[in-house]
Amino acid sequence: MKKRIITISRENGSGGRYIGEKLAEALKIPCYDEKLMDLVAKESGFALDFVEEKGERITGSLLFNIASSLTYANNVFTGNGVSLQDEVYFIQSRIIKDLAEKEPCVIVGRCADYVLRDRDDCLNVFIVADEKSKLERVVKYYGVSEKDAPSVLKKKDKARYNHYKYYTDKDWGMASNYDLCLNSGLLGIEGCVKVIQDVLAQG
Amino acid sequence: MKKRIITISRENGSGGRYIGEKLAEALKIPCYDEKLMDLVAKESGFALDFVEEKGERITGSLLFNIASSLTYANNVFTGNGVSLQDEVYFIQSRIIKDLAEKEPCVIVGRCADYVLRDRDDCLNVFIVADEKSKLERVVKYYGVSEKDAPSVLKKKDKARYNHYKYYTDKDWGMASNYDLCLNSGLLGIEGCVKVIQDVLAQG
Repeated sequence: MKKRIITISRENGSGGRYIGEKLAEALKIPCYDEKLMDLVAKESGFALDFVEEKGERITGSLLFNIASSLTYANNVFTGNGVSLQDEVYFIQSRIIKDLAEKEPCVIVGRCADYVLRDRDDCLNVFIVADEKSKLERVVKYYGVSEKDAPSVLKKKDKARYNHYKYYTDKDWGMASNYDLCLNSGLLGIEGCVKVIQDVLAQG
Repeated sequence: MKKRIITISRENGSGGRYIGEKLAEALKIPCYDEKLMDLVAKESGFALDFVEEKGERITGSLLFNIASSLTYANNVFTGNGVSLQDEVYFIQSRIIKDLAEKEPCVIVGRCADYVLRDRDDCLNVFIVADEKSKLERVVKYYGVSEKDAPSVLKKKDKARYNHYKYYTDKDWGMASNYDLCLNSGLLGIEGCVKVIQDVLAQG
């Protein structure tokens, strides 16, 4: 079965988002990353910042999640157990499924590999990089100071790991979850795009 | 830096060993898998079966490991804390380092990616496959019954995970440990060999 959808998961600082954009350009198909966040924000009514924050990160506070699942009316708190975090996930997942149904595309992050697990036309890619390349990238492109960069990387990847674990019960970054994992520190951005295209051509 | 050494780690049943052999054939360089075990057996004086068993698996028994590190002489047990398991690992690691120094080659399994971590001329590859492909492969090529195949796969991968964790303190199968991870269920044996060659050509 030809692969129409490419999901790209990535370590923070690996350039995976940029690889997704470049790949989509080369394939002349849309890339859903920020565009996906816009769609989720529009559909949910949540602010874009909130959607971006919750879409790949579990907030640590159990209390916040419980509280956000409650409604107060007629002097009584009632709840359906669905936190705002869950709501973002559900809406995001539905939109990802609709996009995959509609047209060939690249989808970056957001557990898309798992959300689309029942389809057989997805190529699931994970991008890693060596520590040095990742640190250089977050300092250069994300305005993080050299001093803060190591802890920022660690914290963001940990948040992605926890979010993925929570919604999929799988380990984010385990090779067995993906069809293709690439080290962008070794291959470069263009090199990764090329390998993905070669694999698509074989598929 | 051109990659001279290719290490191939693999899930049980993924065909990773076969990919290593085919790759070595295509590159006209040696593949060390069983040949490596022969060298370790010869150098250590241990039986080949024992080396094969201990080279990628931690035996569960702490007592065995403690007992195997002791020597009995003059009515006293003495020990250096090095179990037979450790001895296999140390000898194996030294041989892997010597091989990598000597000539371009493919090395399958045996924590070679970690053992050679200080070199920058290694391409570290991990091969995965979907459950169905792996089950078919162990039934077809390893004489495992269909009934036993799922538990055999699980047990062997768990053993490799534990062995890798014990000696490297890293998680076997995490994409971040490797330069390239491939799903042989999707790409096939020849397809994986081709992608590895493409990546080597880029490196």
